[in-house]
Amino acid sequence: MAASTNSFLIGNTTHIPTLKPKPTSQSFLHLTKPTTVNLTGKSKPISIRCAAATTTHVPQERVFNFAAGPATLPENVLLKAQADLYNWRGSGMSVMEMSHRGKEFLSIIQKAESDLRNLLEIPSEYSVLFLQGGATTQFSALPLNLCKSDDTIDFVVTGSWGDKAVKEAKKYCNTNVIWSGKSEKYTKVPSFDELEQSMHAKYLHICANETIHGVEFKDYPVAKNGYLVADMSSNFCSKPVDVSKFGVIYGGAQKNVGPSGVTIVIIRKDLIGDARDFTPVMLDYKIHDENSSLYNTPPCFGIYMCGLVFEDLLEQGGLKEVEKKNQKKADLLYNAIEGSNGFFKCPVEKSVRSLMNVPFTLEKSELEAEFIKEAAKEKMVQLKGHRSVGGMRASIYNAMPLAGVEKLVAFMKDFQAKHG
Amino acid sequence: MAASTNSFLIGNTTHIPTLKPKPTSQSFLHLTKPTTVNLTGKSKPISIRCAAATTTHVPQERVFNFAAGPATLPENVLLKAQADLYNWRGSGMSVMEMSHRGKEFLSIIQKAESDLRNLLEIPSEYSVLFLQGGATTQFSALPLNLCKSDDTIDFVVTGSWGDKAVKEAKKYCNTNVIWSGKSEKYTKVPSFDELEQSMHAKYLHICANETIHGVEFKDYPVAKNGYLVADMSSNFCSKPVDVSKFGVIYGGAQKNVGPSGVTIVIIRKDLIGDARDFTPVMLDYKIHDENSSLYNTPPCFGIYMCGLVFEDLLEQGGLKEVEKKNQKKADLLYNAIEGSNGFFKCPVEKSVRSLMNVPFTLEKSELEAEFIKEAAKEKMVQLKGHRSVGGMRASIYNAMPLAGVEKLVAFMKDFQAKHG
Repeated sequence: MAASTNSFLIGNTTHIPTLKPKPTSQSFLHLTKPTTVNLTGKSKPISIRCAAATTTHVPQERVFNFAAGPATLPENVLLKAQADLYNWRGSGMSVMEMSHRGKEFLSIIQKAESDLRNLLEIPSEYSVLFLQGGATTQFSALPLNLCKSDDTIDFVVTGSWGDKAVKEAKKYCNTNVIWSGKSEKYTKVPSFDELEQSMHAKYLHICANETIHGVEFKDYPVAKNGYLVADMSSNFCSKPVDVSKFGVIYGGAQKNVGPSGVTIVIIRKDLIGDARDFTPVMLDYKIHDENSSLYNTPPCFGIYMCGLVFEDLLEQGGLKEVEKKNQKKADLLYNAIEGSNGFFKCPVEKSVRSLMNVPFTLEKSELEAEFIKEAAKEKMVQLKGHRSVGGMRASIYNAMPLAGVEKLVAFMKDFQAKHG
Repeated sequence: MAASTNSFLIGNTTHIPTLKPKPTSQSFLHLTKPTTVNLTGKSKPISIRCAAATTTHVPQERVFNFAAGPATLPENVLLKAQADLYNWRGSGMSVMEMSHRGKEFLSIIQKAESDLRNLLEIPSEYSVLFLQGGATTQFSALPLNLCKSDDTIDFVVTGSWGDKAVKEAKKYCNTNVIWSGKSEKYTKVPSFDELEQSMHAKYLHICANETIHGVEFKDYPVAKNGYLVADMSSNFCSKPVDVSKFGVIYGGAQKNVGPSGVTIVIIRKDLIGDARDFTPVMLDYKIHDENSSLYNTPPCFGIYMCGLVFEDLLEQGGLKEVEKKNQKKADLLYNAIEGSNGFFKCPVEKSVRSLMNVPFTLEKSELEAEFIKEAAKEKMVQLKGHRSVGGMRASIYNAMPLAGVEKLVAFMKDFQAKHG
């Protein structure tokens, strides 16, 4: 090995490549020094930069990815995962190869749970479960675990996901949609005073952030009976949440905290243990709680990725800091829409606009396809609105850098100047 | 960048690092040239070797990992995944960040299915589904989709997993265990002629390879009524299988074909579409079939990894070649056990010993803990038998190199010489 002919850099922070195009004759790879498990999440990996000259084309230019989920992940998390993919911390194996009952993976899942508990300040009377199957599986699991056939669930439906939750629950118990925004094309959240909750509802279900419609609860209703259950798939860990206000919080990881294939359920322990007798074993919270999410083989690599994201969020200063950044990005984008003199429009009522998913349309709707196409040319991708809604949608989750929103806003101004 | 001072190698095959210890002052990273999607699976990626001298400790030594699952993965697959993790083929994003409805991920899942169909020669009247939740979820999904409450399933139970399948099916219909190896500690497969199948069984269920007990079907019974259903989690894609003999083949990916979090179901299309009305939507095969496994967000990165493994298996020459390698590895290990004059013992009847999972004990059982500990010191890990069985177990799936089995056999001989 001509080791002495190499150039490299060592720093005490993880190096993040810039998003500017690089000559295709250069590439960057990153090795992270193996560290022992550090439960504080404060360790700063030492990063080595290895520059390799090649004659092949190895583009390292990243796009700004506005997809609604799976969605963009923090660059430093991806680089850590890349460095450790082949051999995690000198264990001699990839995280993907580890026995889920071995000490290495146990340290990973335990740290992930511990960091998530820190982030959301989850009280000890709540269990944290790492499951599979997405929020859609929870649409079934919730009534199966929490209701008998003659029980009633109240639903406030502010978008398509809340609506799907109702449809699935109907299989297992009574459902009462106490408010729906459907007739107003899901652009609002109701005033909580107006809600007529059922006399004996088992629980009140909301979708805290509707990914497709961009409607987000800024505060939460109180269940008159029972407790509040919230699908937080698309705003999970995007801001502080008072977990004690909820019976259950659940969400797919693939928006804010990891890759698809991991579902996180935070559930008050006293609600566990009363599943219907025909509940599939993998949908029974008791099974997963008793086995610390290891009843069968969990989605290990996905949980590992979530753990890296939790670590990153803690390093950013926790969810208060994360919320500030999200607010700043959202303000920038909504202000650009509002300041366009109607060239761009957001259909959602101002007070409940999502910090995560920003749907917008063009006054001249015939230009929307061009907008999306031109943006993609400038490396801003996945801006097309959901097929059920049309228009555009910019998902600006935790991991979307401010620079991505700034670039989008500049592009919008240019586009308006050209076509306004 | 001091590009001209770098050393690198370009070859027309993927370079796989040896398993010999490397000086910790050197490390190897691999970049794979991005290629366009190639549906033949024949493309040979160009590999670049980048040697970096560092003063930090970056061990790249791999262990031989005999875990039962999650299990060792092909090194070239891990290196490809590592090279592309941050930016898949110049797309500007990781596979983990891609919209599951975008053209990039669609090309990945479609190629994975196509390659799997090639590998197993899956007839067109079968659907291939990429699901979540492991085989355990299928223990519920199968009766929910295929049986009414008064239907009967016949079970041949050759180990713990078959037994678990019975217990779950009892929730949904009648179960008839027509043979169980439990009283003989799960060491046999029955003669098929002896089996007294139910008159009107809906299907006959087997676990084709019992991971814990190391019992493998070498041929398959024919269902007198209905069809054969097989859990192939731990020998999936380890050898050719005549899919047309089965109604359903299913398995978790985390033994032979990928990371945990992906479950593959191969099902005859005429069996789809008759699920019980209380079947959770995510357990309904019809939903997944109609939506090409994209009803909700699938475990994208896991499916991508499975696709890389399928590609690798095709490049090895397909499942006939893979079976030869597996047979050779298993012969080596079983012969070592048989040739030890009783120092090592395998409890399983010779004719049905698994090519994948090799359980064995020591005549002097008090030495087992030392055996496992000493082997780990020599970088052979996860040799402890399942907690329900004890002793040792060497899982030697597709991705376990012959060198790993050779090293284990040499170690066994040394251990015997020392303690025999």
